[in-house]
Amino acid sequence: MRPLYHPAIEDVTVEGILHALSDPVRVRIFKNIASSECAQTCSTFLEVSGQPIPKSTLSQHFKVLRETGLVRSERKGVELHNVSRCAEIDERFPGLLTAIVAAHQRQLERAQAPGRRRSRPA
Amino acid sequence: MRPLYHPAIEDVTVEGILHALSDPVRVRIFKNIASSECAQTCSTFLEVSGQPIPKSTLSQHFKVLRETGLVRSERKGVELHNVSRCAEIDERFPGLLTAIVAAHQRQLERAQAPGRRRSRPA
Repeated sequence: MRPLYHPAIEDVTVEGILHALSDPVRVRIFKNIASSECAQTCSTFLEVSGQPIPKSTLSQHFKVLRETGLVRSERKGVELHNVSRCAEIDERFPGLLTAIVAAHQRQLERAQAPGRRRSRPA
Repeated sequence: MRPLYHPAIEDVTVEGILHALSDPVRVRIFKNIASSECAQTCSTFLEVSGQPIPKSTLSQHFKVLRETGLVRSERKGVELHNVSRCAEIDERFPGLLTAIVAAHQRQLERAQAPGRRRSRPA
């Protein structure tokens, strides 16, 4: 079985983080892992976006999160257990993840708010 | 000539912003426009990454920045004049752009620093 690749923190890039978190499913997964006190298995997220995600797609999302340096995964039996690397990243890029997660949260709350202002043409 | 599309600020998404700024050339262009007091023409950026960028590629980068909502472009003769939409975005997603630009700057400074720590295997 191939070892799981995790970049050294020095090799984690802003571009990589932004790309990884520019996908709505990945950012939901990451927010959930980042706010969890214990490791999360991949299968926890099979319905993270409100509808079933194929296992292969989910696996690809975790690969991106891991290889970007956002999560650390460990094999335990047939499952991968995932924890966030927020603390390391926050040391390298202070405030970046907090700002991204807060902006996503704000967007989510606006979308769910009743009487959301309709967009007007630019 | 087709009108230039600019999304209403309510339609600007975090995912769009992250995607647009996950490209190293686009983030350089954006940082430059955001820190300028006057509108910048596209041709100013033909060598923004240190090597010549084909005009068609540059044009595509500006299209992404504009359609994501990061810049506002106006045709003046044969040129496009571009200004940032930082103020609007900062109202919608407070602190997001500042955090991204600061992280990019930090990354740039580290890469340029003498005696940069070499990466070690994870």
